Amino acid sequence: MRVLVVDDDGERAAVVEASLREAGAEIAAVLGIDADLRAAIQAHRPDVIIVDLASPYRDYLEDLMSINQETPRPIALLVGEEDRPLMARAVKAGVSIYAVDGLSAKLVRSIMETVSGHFHRFQKVNEELEKSRAALNDRKTIERAKGLLMAHRDLSEEQAYKTLRKMAMDQNKRLVEVAEAVLSFAELLKR
Amino acid sequence: MRVLVVDDDGERAAVVEASLREAGAEIAAVLGIDADLRAAIQAHRPDVIIVDLASPYRDYLEDLMSINQETPRPIALLVGEEDRPLMARAVKAGVSIYAVDGLSAKLVRSIMETVSGHFHRFQKVNEELEKSRAALNDRKTIERAKGLLMAHRDLSEEQAYKTLRKMAMDQNKRLVEVAEAVLSFAELLKR
Repeated sequence: MRVLVVDDDGERAAVVEASLREAGAEIAAVLGIDADLRAAIQAHRPDVIIVDLASPYRDYLEDLMSINQETPRPIALLVGEEDRPLMARAVKAGVSIYAVDGLSAKLVRSIMETVSGHFHRFQKVNEELEKSRAALNDRKTIERAKGLLMAHRDLSEEQAYKTLRKMAMDQNKRLVEVAEAVLSFAELLKR
Repeated sequence: MRVLVVDDDGERAAVVEASLREAGAEIAAVLGIDADLRAAIQAHRPDVIIVDLASPYRDYLEDLMSINQETPRPIALLVGEEDRPLMARAVKAGVSIYAVDGLSAKLVRSIMETVSGHFHRFQKVNEELEKSRAALNDRKTIERAKGLLMAHRDLSEEQAYKTLRKMAMDQNKRLVEVAEAVLSFAELLKR
């Protein structure tokens, strides 16, 4: 697992790094809090991001949440001090937060595994949701194109479907692409 | 937040309980490791389950994973000793695991919030996925029923759709229910 570490404290960073190495993780980079996190993520494409802050700086957290929206990745935030309202917001945005005093190697390891596991579980369901919604939309588009052919060319449902399928095969396109083309052509004729 | 605590060690249990109370959580019950967890979940319907074990007993973990499959709930497992292969399996099954030596109130609080937040985020996407899949299936069922009416009663697509819709209105049922009835009736006639 490739880990990007952000740290505002050299001593804590050393514990995090040591425990990650011990866990067999590869440390992609260690950044200070002032470094450009977006650029570092682009450059290193880490599997997990571990951010270790003595206190949860509001601005940094806001930034972390919007980065997580743009390019979702497993993020674990370790903080020394609690700021419970701020932390609650971060959790809602999908950032895992742990308020810890002493960091042990095994705690860092288990947090890394848990955060990464949850992230992938969530992503999987999310991808399935997107696929399912796309399938539903494709179906609606195909139905609409079929209905249009039936009405305008006086075809039966089966004939309309076969016409679309033949167009798709002839043009080496997906059925939904042909259906979209039919619908936009009809839209054009209306003007 | 109502929390069910499972603990195999009185001293650690006391820390967990104290930190939960301090966090404003309500402790639904404290169980030993030999108690019937399924029954306790049924009885108390907790918002979060925190299981604190000196070492991750394989049998107990297996049980926890299957409980999590049957009645998903946010579960945080705090363990004193690591068993990394076992823990990796639990994480895959959606159980959050943290290997900790010393438990602090703020660590317990942040774990509780993070686990609960992730759970609800996951559940929300999962429910949307189920809805989207159901909508797709409904649509397929309605299309099949429509096709059947078109073929057997020589109706146009529009007429078939109107027939189904009228049946649904007359019987005060959903369109998909009427479509299912049409399909099972047709199935019956085939025999």
